[in-house]
Formats: sequence, C-alpha cells, structure tokens
Amino acid sequence: MIRWTLPGGTRRAALATALVAATLAVPVTAQLRDQADLDAIYRIKQEGVSNSKVMETLSYLTDINGPRLTNSPMMHQAAAWAQKQLTAWGLANVHTEKWGPFGRGWVNEHTSIRMDAPQPFVLLGYPKAWTPGTEGEVSGDAVAVTIETDEDFAKYKGTLKGKFVLQSPTREVASFFESPTRRYTETGLEELSHDQIGSARGRFPGGFGAGMEFRKKRMAFYKEEGILAVVEMSAGARGDNGAVIAQGPMPGDGDRTVEGQVPVPQVVLAGEHYGRLLRVLEKKVPVKLTMNVRSRFVDTSLDVYNVIAEIPGTDKADEVVMIGAHFDSWHTGTGATDNAVSSAVMMEAMRILQTSGLKPRRTIRMALWTGEEQGLLGSRAYVKEHFADPTDMKLKPEHGKLSVYLNMDNGGGAFRGVYLQGNEAAAPVFEAWMKPFHNFGMETLSIRNTGGTDHQAFDAVGLPGFQFIQDPLEYSSRTHHTNLDVYERAIPQDLMQNAIVIASFAYQAANRDALFPRKPLPKPRPATPPPGAPAQRPATATTTSQP
Amino acid sequence: MIRWTLPGGTRRAALATALVAATLAVPVTAQLRDQADLDAIYRIKQEGVSNSKVMETLSYLTDINGPRLTNSPMMHQAAAWAQKQLTAWGLANVHTEKWGPFGRGWVNEHTSIRMDAPQPFVLLGYPKAWTPGTEGEVSGDAVAVTIETDEDFAKYKGTLKGKFVLQSPTREVASFFESPTRRYTETGLEELSHDQIGSARGRFPGGFGAGMEFRKKRMAFYKEEGILAVVEMSAGARGDNGAVIAQGPMPGDGDRTVEGQVPVPQVVLAGEHYGRLLRVLEKKVPVKLTMNVRSRFVDTSLDVYNVIAEIPGTDKADEVVMIGAHFDSWHTGTGATDNAVSSAVMMEAMRILQTSGLKPRRTIRMALWTGEEQGLLGSRAYVKEHFADPTDMKLKPEHGKLSVYLNMDNGGGAFRGVYLQGNEAAAPVFEAWMKPFHNFGMETLSIRNTGGTDHQAFDAVGLPGFQFIQDPLEYSSRTHHTNLDVYERAIPQDLMQNAIVIASFAYQAANRDALFPRKPLPKPRPATPPPGAPAQRPATATTTSQP
Repeated sequence: MIRWTLPGGTRRAALATALVAATLAVPVTAQLRDQADLDAIYRIKQEGVSNSKVMETLSYLTDINGPRLTNSPMMHQAAAWAQKQLTAWGLANVHTEKWGPFGRGWVNEHTSIRMDAPQPFVLLGYPKAWTPGTEGEVSGDAVAVTIETDEDFAKYKGTLKGKFVLQSPTREVASFFESPTRRYTETGLEELSHDQIGSARGRFPGGFGAGMEFRKKRMAFYKEEGILAVVEMSAGARGDNGAVIAQGPMPGDGDRTVEGQVPVPQVVLAGEHYGRLLRVLEKKVPVKLTMNVRSRFVDTSLDVYNVIAEIPGTDKADEVVMIGAHFDSWHTGTGATDNAVSSAVMMEAMRILQTSGLKPRRTIRMALWTGEEQGLLGSRAYVKEHFADPTDMKLKPEHGKLSVYLNMDNGGGAFRGVYLQGNEAAAPVFEAWMKPFHNFGMETLSIRNTGGTDHQAFDAVGLPGFQFIQDPLEYSSRTHHTNLDVYERAIPQDLMQNAIVIASFAYQAANRDALFPRKPLPKPRPATPPPGAPAQRPATATTTSQP
Repeated sequence: MIRWTLPGGTRRAALATALVAATLAVPVTAQLRDQADLDAIYRIKQEGVSNSKVMETLSYLTDINGPRLTNSPMMHQAAAWAQKQLTAWGLANVHTEKWGPFGRGWVNEHTSIRMDAPQPFVLLGYPKAWTPGTEGEVSGDAVAVTIETDEDFAKYKGTLKGKFVLQSPTREVASFFESPTRRYTETGLEELSHDQIGSARGRFPGGFGAGMEFRKKRMAFYKEEGILAVVEMSAGARGDNGAVIAQGPMPGDGDRTVEGQVPVPQVVLAGEHYGRLLRVLEKKVPVKLTMNVRSRFVDTSLDVYNVIAEIPGTDKADEVVMIGAHFDSWHTGTGATDNAVSSAVMMEAMRILQTSGLKPRRTIRMALWTGEEQGLLGSRAYVKEHFADPTDMKLKPEHGKLSVYLNMDNGGGAFRGVYLQGNEAAAPVFEAWMKPFHNFGMETLSIRNTGGTDHQAFDAVGLPGFQFIQDPLEYSSRTHHTNLDVYERAIPQDLMQNAIVIASFAYQAANRDALFPRKPLPKPRPATPPPGAPAQRPATATTTSQP
C-alpha cells in the first residue's frame, strides 16, 4: 500500500489521478520499466546488510575527522579521508571541484568557561563559529545588558570595560514530558500524504535587514567599551537539558571575511547555566566569570570544494544520476546527524553498488557538498557551473543529461517515503521503486515542496531533486546544530536501510529507459544572498584533480 | 478515594482491615481526631499559594550557594544562609548540631578537559569528589587500560608514565524513545498500593569487599607508574545525552580522610565523549588529551553539623513532631532535585506555619541533614544523640517524646501519597490527613518499606519515620547525582503543593491527641559502616549555638 493523496482528494482517487498525470508526462515504455529490478535489489540488500561499512564510515567522519565546519582543517582532513576511501573502494573519477570564495577557515582549539563567584562552577558553553577567542584566560564581572534601541547605548556608555556582557533575556527551560526521540506514526505519515504543495519550508526567512544595522552598531559599541565577551543563552528547543546550540555569528555581528570579522568574542551558554547567572544577578549578588577561548582563523584559501566520485555508466554513460549530501557541519558536536550520517549513507551506497558488480547504464555520480550550512553554497555553485544559473536560466548542455538528484539531510532516521517537491509525475516512479522497501516502513509519498537543503539547488533550475521523508528521531528536539550531535545519536539499522534504498533508487534511475520526469522550467530569479555570506557570492566552480 | 490495599487483599477489604488494625493500635479518642482541621489547612494553603517563597529559597540554595557537598565551603555558606533566613522568618531555636568526624572538605574550582588529537574537541567531564586535581594543565596520550586481575598488572608495567588511563569498558548509549520525564499514572499508583512489605530498597547493597582491596592495589600501581589521571565513562542511565554522573571515589580507590586520599586524579566523561576516545583508539589513531583540574581540600574541621529550627508547642511543647530533608548534595550540578527542593520545601513549610499564626500543641522541629549522600550520616548521628543507638537500642528520654518524622528526598515531584514503612496503623492517620489533598492528586498509600534516605535513621530505632510517594519526573532518568541537577529541573507548582502538605501534616501531627502510632521496637543491630566512610564512624553530636 502506498500512502499518497493529492491535495483535496481521497487516497484512491488521487492515486488514479497521479497515474494519469504520470502517463501523460512520460512515454508509456518508461512507465512499463518502473518496476523494481528485484535481482539487483537482492544483491544490493545483501551487500548492504552483510558487509555494511556505514557505521565505520560515520566514525571516521565524526570521531576521527569531525566536526567539519566548512573550510576548517577538519573538513579538509575529512574530505581527504573520504577521497582516499572512495578510491580504495574502486570508485572512478574521485576528485574535488572548487568553489568560492566562501570565507575564512576557523577552528576552536580550547574553550573553558567558569563562574568564580558567587561559587566556582564549570559552565557549559561554546563560541560561535568565526568569532575571535579571548586574550588568553580573562576574568571579570558579568553584567546583564539590554541594548535594543539607540536610546539604550547611553545607559551603558563607559561602564562595560572588562565586563562579560549577558545579552539574552531569559526563557523557560522545560523538561521532556514527551519523548524527544520518535518515529513517524501511521497518523503522521497519513497526514504527510495529504500535504499541500504550498507547504515549503525555507531556510532563510529573511527580515534580518533592519536588525543587521543595529547589531553592527551594538558590536562596535561593545568593542569600543572594551568588553571581554558577549555571552548569550542558548536558544530554545535544543538549548538546554545538556544541549547547546552555537552556530555562526548573527547577520550584523560579523561574518566570515577578514574585513567583516566579529569584533569581540561571543559565546553561547547552556540554558540552565545562563539562567543561573541571571538569577544570581537579580539578587544583587555579583557574578564573576573566567573564560579562555582559543580559536584560530585559517586563511590558506577562501575557496573550498565539493567531493565527487562516480560509477561510470555503460550504454548511457553520458547521462548522469546524482546522489549527494552535505558534508560540512557546525562545530560543537561532531556533525553526526547533520550530516555525517547522510555523507556516510551516500558513500556506502556507492560502495554497495561498486562491490555488487551491478552495471548501471547511466553514470552514477555522488557529491559531498560543503557550505550547505551557510546557504547551500556548495551545491548551488555546482549547479551553476554544470547545469544553469537560476538568475538567468541559460541552460548548459549537462542540464539535458541529468536524470535525477537524490539528497539526504534530515538526520539519521530511516526513510519512510519521498517528498515529491510538487512533481506529480514522479509519484508512479517512486511508487514502483519503493515497493521492495515496504518492509522497511517506506511507503509514503508527499507532494510537499520540502526545503532547507541541497536538492533545492537542483530544483531551482528545473532539475528533479528530491529529499526523503525520514523518521524524525531526535533531530529537531536534540541534535540539529547542537553539541549533542555525535556518533551515538545515529542508529545503525536506519543508516543501513537508507544506504540500501539510495543504492537501489540510483540503480533504478540509471537503468530506466527515459530520464526522470521533470517539472516545467522555472523563470529566472534574481539572486538573494543569504545573511552572513561574504560580500561576493560564490561565483566559480572548477574541477581539480584528486589531492 | 484512597488507594490502599494490604498485601493479598482487595482494596475494600484491606481498608477495613487497616482501620481495624489502627483501631487496635491507638486509642479511640485519637482516631476521632484523625480528620483534617480544615480551617488550619485553609490558612496553610492560602499562605503557601499566595506568598510562596519556595522557588526563591531554592534559588538561594542552588544558584547562590550550591552545590552543597558535605563539608564544602558552599555547604557551609548555604547552611549559614538558611539559618539567617529561618531566623528572619521568626523561627525559634535556630541552631546547628555538630556531628563527626565526617572527613575533609573539598571543592572543585576549575575543570577543563579537551582532546587535542586527532582533533581539538572540548570534553564534558567532572572530577569525582575528594579526588586530587592535576598539577596544572597536563597533556599526554590516552590509553585504554584493562586491569581486572592480578595478572593484568604485568601487561602495563612501565608503560603508563604521563598517560591518561581510560579505565571503563564502553557501553550502549541510547536515545530517549520514551519520555525521560513522567508523572505517576493511575496504574502505577494502583500497583504501588498493592506493594508488599518486603520490597525495601537499601542504599548500600554491600559486596564491595573483594573489589575494594583490588582497587586499592590498582590505584597504587597507577600512582607508581606516574599516570596523569584515571578517566572513566559516565555510568549508564544518567550518563549521556548531556548528563554526567560523578560522585565520590569508589571504595578502595580512596576516601575522605587525609591518609586515605585518592592517589591520582579521577575524572568521569560524558558517555558519548568517552565513547569517541575509545573509537579513535580502536582505529589505531593516537588520542592526546589536555586536562586542568583544580580542586582544593579544606581541613578546617572534619566535623560538620545539621541545621535545626523550631516552632515551639503550647500545651504539649515537650513532645516533638519532626520534618526534615538532607541539605547536602553532590558536586557537578547545584544539587537542586537532590535535595535542595526538599530543603526548600521544609523551610517553606516552617515559614508557612510561622506566618499563618497557627499554634501547634506539640513543638514542630525541622532538621536539614548533612552527610546523607555518604550514608545518612547526619541523621543517624542525630538519632543516636537524641533517641537511641540502633546497635544497643538503649532508649533515651526523647525517644518517648517524638511523635513522627516526615522526610522528603525523591526529587521535586508532587506528593502522590505516603510509604507506610510497614506501619499499618499509620494508614488511617495518613488517610485522614491526605483527604484535603485529593485535589493535589495525593491519595495513595503503599505499605512499602522504602529506603535510601534519612527517615531510615528514625525507623532503625523504632521511631515513626516516613517518606512520600512522589511523581518521578526526571529524577531517575536525568537529574539524580548528575550535572543536570540544577534549578530549572524543579517545577514550582509541585514544590508549593509539597510545602503545603508538609505544613499541614506537621500541624495535624502536632495537634493530634496521641503520639503517632508506632511499630514494635526493633532488636539491636551491629553497626555496618557504609563503604567510603572514614575509619571511625560518626560518634558524637553536640548542640551548638547559631553561628
């Protein structure tokens, strides 16, 4: 049974509609081919279950080489390891493709934050990425500061020298009366299958404009005052109960360029620890902190690269099926569920296909993107270089040769279906491909135009790019961009299943008679740089040989 | 409706039996008095709801003065604050009563642990209490060491100098597919009401004997080798997902005396961070750590004290009703749910009674115990001094004057009933007292002989000592003895309710015609010192005036 309904329709009626729509969109011969190649799938499942390397790969990407902040030394080490491993597995054309400029490299080498008064207490906190460290170990009073309007500056002028500035208001810190970790229920999947096409979720809602200028002014004021550091309370949802979210600087506070560098150290504390500081200050009891944050900027190159590997096709080798995931992460955990799990799944899918000896007709190409966390930068650069620039929609020859791009980036949960990205003709194809995986619990299609990750770069130029429906596990409650995002948060069975599905779908796409059905081409759209990006957008991508 | 069944009986039959039993045990006049004094309870509820100070008190015990490890500087500051506050509220006879020897004071002033290779990474970890710090910032390789038998020493001899010893095997680190925070369900309470009398839970199961000698030898070996520190994986259940449990040294590793001091630093790491170290080492990749642990021993006094305060009685002032909770905590959080919540509840109950202007017939005395975490040491010393020594059961005059002792120490969850401690005659009394609190969800009695905290000191000499059935919340899943045990983990409504219940029960007990019904006196029992205790047992307790 496939869970799949068109907006407003009942499931059965919708299935019929979808089939008709699909039949109109692609040749009948292709439709006949959209049934699972069970022999191939048997071999894929066999290799993926019996000889799985996905957890070992995950450990190398996280424990040995993580976290993988874009352009950090660890990202480069992880990318070098991945290329070596892909080559060792026998994959072809393993190489990097440069894009940029991205901005500076950055790594935190030491963070120690403690309260000294009223009592000694170790504080759990992390610097934001691309913020400067302290000048060694520094100590001083903490003060709660509220500067929200121009009038507020005068209240603090001349008072903040040598102080730690507690900038956040407090918020409620609740306990988990509901489980933070969950799988989709039947009801939840049913609801997804009824989704409306308009329910896209964008990553950057915008609206930073006015705030940016004010934040810039406030940072300059802090610098002029000579504060020791800005201290923030970790944002809600995933900022307490042992979790802390620290990402990059807010727009206006600074960016990844030399000239835009954040002027003072910025750290984020666990909700409860920040709360303690405020409660002490409320009682008119002084708070003294000591902090030692050592972070290093790396200016070797402002460019970075994506990692590419292939299994060459046979009679349709010039046509390409792509699979991919972003390889970069934030810096406080080891970037396990965001997104080493998916990088490991993609590498494992390639390993399975290579080892199984299956011969795909089209070339299967894997990409591990960087700069995703800063606005899908790596995948957008790749798409612009190879397929089309969404701002002018002048199609390059490769645009006609890409069948489909399959992406994973919603944590480590098992695939439960596919978001169709509004492409109704894709429904019968995925329906056929999912059939052998109903016993994995994968049987739902949603018309949802899901957002927030690299398939959007493809979708933006009219190429079929898809992202999977996954069990949420604790992605949105605990691990997404937090210090808890480490190896243990991945569930081996889920990753093994997902690698098998990716390998199988890629193989089916490679051997399908026709290219994957497409939506109509979008109109050109003017560029809107995401906040926090360097002044220049990433513009060029060049193929380089394997290091 | 009261949930209350005797072993084997149905609820209704059991209630009848209990009533009969109670009728036999206490005079009929007393029985007639066992109904709630609704006027007094109205005044108590009014004060406890409208003018509650319980969260403010909690903040002073945790944020300002916590954590409160026994004999640490913070414990002393917290005790001084409590006495000042109790005096300010108008309570009588506020003083401390010394007991000891307990052992040395100890405080951790700085802890910073990080991985330097293969990647820089901040490690979440804490020293065990009463372990020495490192000699400033020290760096070295980490090695996994398994010394479990005498034969194992030779494998490592001469190899561990300047190394960090990873001593724990790994374990599974799971996600919370079930909520870590919960309240009792109807079913759960129903089951409790059917409990058997034999289901006591002791704190010290014993069996450390053989292991102790080996551990001592192993520690001496580490010292001789010149290791930098012993590193352990935080134990399961509450040792990952952001939580770390670090308590005191294991028996054999050392103790709280000068002569028994743990010879090398010992730290406990978060499950996932320790797991990372092991996974890196398994891949034959070297792990380098840097650690800086600064802890200070305080040898001002080896004795400590309990804090006492009273509301003097009227016509029966020489008889006493006691309420109490342990005041001390472990050191990694601020000891909020274990056990500042209960100390705050007891202080609040005294404040409510004092402010309400009610005149208890008997004296109501509150005790805040210390040394509970090391084996109920403070309450045992007090009971021995005032009532009887359980080893000889020679009763002191005060033994005949104590009506009942009410204790709280199972986290901050709302009271849902009372553990009867095998005292069946107590059932109808508590049944009557609970009636006005059915709307608090408090309507269950369990015959269970519950253990693990200070009411046991009273029970051990035949005095009625009771502990409440409480909503578990996240006590056993997250906060008990962990770094997450901080202010935010308390739920204000629950603490307000509990303070009102304690004030009300204490008042009812103070104004009851007869003393609280007792079980038969126990036989004398030889002393069995808990592991980790200093050579001499706490022997003396002396009343001192308020500092």
